[in-house]
Amino acid sequence: MFDTFNKDSKKDTLYVSLYKHIKKMIKENKYQEGQKLPSKRRLAEDLHISPLTVEAAYQQLIAEGYVYAIEKKGYYVDEQIELVESHKKNIKFKSQNDAEVVPEYQYAFRTNVVDTSLFPNTTWARLSREVLSENHHEMLNVTHPQGVLMLRKEIAKYLELYRGMNVSEEQIIIGSGSSSLISILIELLGRDKHYAIENPGYSKNYALYKGNDVRLSLISLDDSGIKIDDLIQSNAEIVHITPSHQFPMGIVMPIQRRIELLNWSNRFIGRYIIEDDYDSEFRFQGKPIPALQGFYENDQVIYMNTFARTLAPSFRMSYMVLPLKLLPRYHQIMTYHGCTVPNSEQYIMYKFMHGGFFERHINRMRNQYRQKIELILKMVENYPNVRLKGYDAGLHFLMEIETNDTEASLIEKVAQHHIYVTGLSSYDHKIHSSHSNPTLVIGYSGIKKEEIEQSISALFQSINISKS
Amino acid sequence: MFDTFNKDSKKDTLYVSLYKHIKKMIKENKYQEGQKLPSKRRLAEDLHISPLTVEAAYQQLIAEGYVYAIEKKGYYVDEQIELVESHKKNIKFKSQNDAEVVPEYQYAFRTNVVDTSLFPNTTWARLSREVLSENHHEMLNVTHPQGVLMLRKEIAKYLELYRGMNVSEEQIIIGSGSSSLISILIELLGRDKHYAIENPGYSKNYALYKGNDVRLSLISLDDSGIKIDDLIQSNAEIVHITPSHQFPMGIVMPIQRRIELLNWSNRFIGRYIIEDDYDSEFRFQGKPIPALQGFYENDQVIYMNTFARTLAPSFRMSYMVLPLKLLPRYHQIMTYHGCTVPNSEQYIMYKFMHGGFFERHINRMRNQYRQKIELILKMVENYPNVRLKGYDAGLHFLMEIETNDTEASLIEKVAQHHIYVTGLSSYDHKIHSSHSNPTLVIGYSGIKKEEIEQSISALFQSINISKS
Repeated sequence: MFDTFNKDSKKDTLYVSLYKHIKKMIKENKYQEGQKLPSKRRLAEDLHISPLTVEAAYQQLIAEGYVYAIEKKGYYVDEQIELVESHKKNIKFKSQNDAEVVPEYQYAFRTNVVDTSLFPNTTWARLSREVLSENHHEMLNVTHPQGVLMLRKEIAKYLELYRGMNVSEEQIIIGSGSSSLISILIELLGRDKHYAIENPGYSKNYALYKGNDVRLSLISLDDSGIKIDDLIQSNAEIVHITPSHQFPMGIVMPIQRRIELLNWSNRFIGRYIIEDDYDSEFRFQGKPIPALQGFYENDQVIYMNTFARTLAPSFRMSYMVLPLKLLPRYHQIMTYHGCTVPNSEQYIMYKFMHGGFFERHINRMRNQYRQKIELILKMVENYPNVRLKGYDAGLHFLMEIETNDTEASLIEKVAQHHIYVTGLSSYDHKIHSSHSNPTLVIGYSGIKKEEIEQSISALFQSINISKS
Repeated sequence: MFDTFNKDSKKDTLYVSLYKHIKKMIKENKYQEGQKLPSKRRLAEDLHISPLTVEAAYQQLIAEGYVYAIEKKGYYVDEQIELVESHKKNIKFKSQNDAEVVPEYQYAFRTNVVDTSLFPNTTWARLSREVLSENHHEMLNVTHPQGVLMLRKEIAKYLELYRGMNVSEEQIIIGSGSSSLISILIELLGRDKHYAIENPGYSKNYALYKGNDVRLSLISLDDSGIKIDDLIQSNAEIVHITPSHQFPMGIVMPIQRRIELLNWSNRFIGRYIIEDDYDSEFRFQGKPIPALQGFYENDQVIYMNTFARTLAPSFRMSYMVLPLKLLPRYHQIMTYHGCTVPNSEQYIMYKFMHGGFFERHINRMRNQYRQKIELILKMVENYPNVRLKGYDAGLHFLMEIETNDTEASLIEKVAQHHIYVTGLSSYDHKIHSSHSNPTLVIGYSGIKKEEIEQSISALFQSINISKS
């Protein structure tokens, strides 16, 4: 039985080879159920190996359930259950590579990227080194489910200074991206609740709420943002808005609409506003508009923001501020969610904020973005058929184009010239309403300043837009 | 009206002071709706400031919606909407600190910690520096939703070598912890499906499935793990198991039960096994038992594992391997979930695995843990009323104690001596079945080797267990 056993196999240690050999014999029914295996001593002698090696192989077979031992009697082959044929289909996928997701465009007007050359790499690397050497123990241990306390305190300070909010670290939850936080929120608020989002709006949020199987209403916008009457009529209880720079319309919600929204949420207990404050750091004229969360005394606003836009998308660090009244329920569910952001990143981010680097970085980025916008505005002056909207804030704007082409055919032409851009209608999740003119959503944060003019020129050329 | 305006306020820039002053006046109704504000030139002359400063303040007021401009006429106070009184209750929480979550125990037999002194800090820090300096651009850019390709390839290689699996990087999804991955899985498989978990079992998983509002059955265990008959009778379609080292019972599932489970999943299309392979790296006798996922040809096993146990809980890096037939549906939902782990950590982890450090670290930890277990086993020999179970693998075992005390009263006594330990019944999510004897779940991974003997002695003393 063991003549085919090759004890000089180079691949495995001796006991592993033996265990594999016996396993194979059992699987091929050379040893049948209930059959006694040779004793350890006997097999060791036969194979000229140590009884300890046989012992190790038998133990592994026992652990895996192929063999059982009866004390003082020996080793027996255990019951072998036949495997029912599998339904496996041979689905084959072409091999992936990371580049596939970000195909090579000449210019990509994406709304979810940053110019990586502007990242304060030296500072970040230095702070990382500090964290790795100083905070060894804290860095490795279990994090508070809401995130590292020092970072939460720093965020609270930042929100007070720059967003006019008054929050305590106990209200802040740090998570690995807005989608993680929204999932927690839906569990917190209830999957039986009725949610509403802006339309047109951020497609990922649409998909995320849909994926969470909640009732979802799409609320239209006017020039001030989400329409209150439509919101009331929808009977939604929770509304997710982007007041600082509506995505994709670029609307900065004026104070009246903000108050109307707060009044809407105040009217019934259980109504909440999710204030998605992304891009609020990048307002190019005047001061940022204070967050809804900090308006008067209210406890119905769930504030949310991300470091993906201010640092880099790869950081996967977002946070939300919960109303006090949601905290008791959150404390019940927080332990099994845990904090999804590595401690090390949180400690580095703490140092980055505490040392004033974050503020400096934002100011620097704001200037860079402002310069880019100004370059674009100046260029566009010469193109009578092009009109820009929503460029006062944020990292994208709308480009309305007077043309006989449809939006879809414009996008196609642009793509043929290896330029990536999306059309406004792709963010409209109802039956696509026809906008007066084709409108492109231009994300300019990923385009280097030196390339701004060429990239816009290339875009115009691709769709035959000419100067006056 | 402007006599109270103090242009020498040190706190703000001049335009901000002015804007705040006017805003306050509007809020206090000193300026009423529709009322015209002084012209820019006029106000500038009155206050002896630059007209540009007034312009900036007015623009901010316009942006926030307090004021509107009529071209060539001037600036007017906009409609002021009154804020409805808030439902805000004054809920107050005591201030948090990170230590609260991990209270100071003399010894804590936790199942979710590691001995941080064993972490290969120097290597990790060096690899971090390398990533920060070499992979600057890749580190900052948007990650593939499934995670960094190089790391996925490395994981696939590891799984083939150590877990007997045959997977492609295209099946691997990296996420920030098992709970994130389970949430994605539930969306992928369907919230209308019927799930089953082991009972007793991991409390976080119980809470997680419950929190996701899915139908959940609790399946009892016998000596080989989950009971197949009970699983069949439950009519569940998806079962989540821990075959390498059942939590908390410590059962290593034998081959027969594994095949029975595979047969169960093969019987109907749409049945899946979630193989939670945590702790499989830490088998102290013989080779690790091959994963279910790699058994014969099957496409019904969703494999899941984490680096939280092998590196440190704070890393928040887990991964799962999807069956090929689930990939098309996953590709539909992956973009809006995105990858929840920072790129930098993924690149460091890639280098850690690729350089052989991961393997070395696991071997080192396995030896450490084995030594700890041996110390404990040797100690316990002298205590006739104590019996250990499930210590062949994994970072916890069961300690059955022959006593007239109840489990609850044992736990309480232990806690009074500043020792943290949990009882087996706290993982039983049905009506607590009475185990023959009180049983403690001893997580020993967070106890330093030098303290193993003192800590177990202290535990025994606290409950008056004495030597023979």
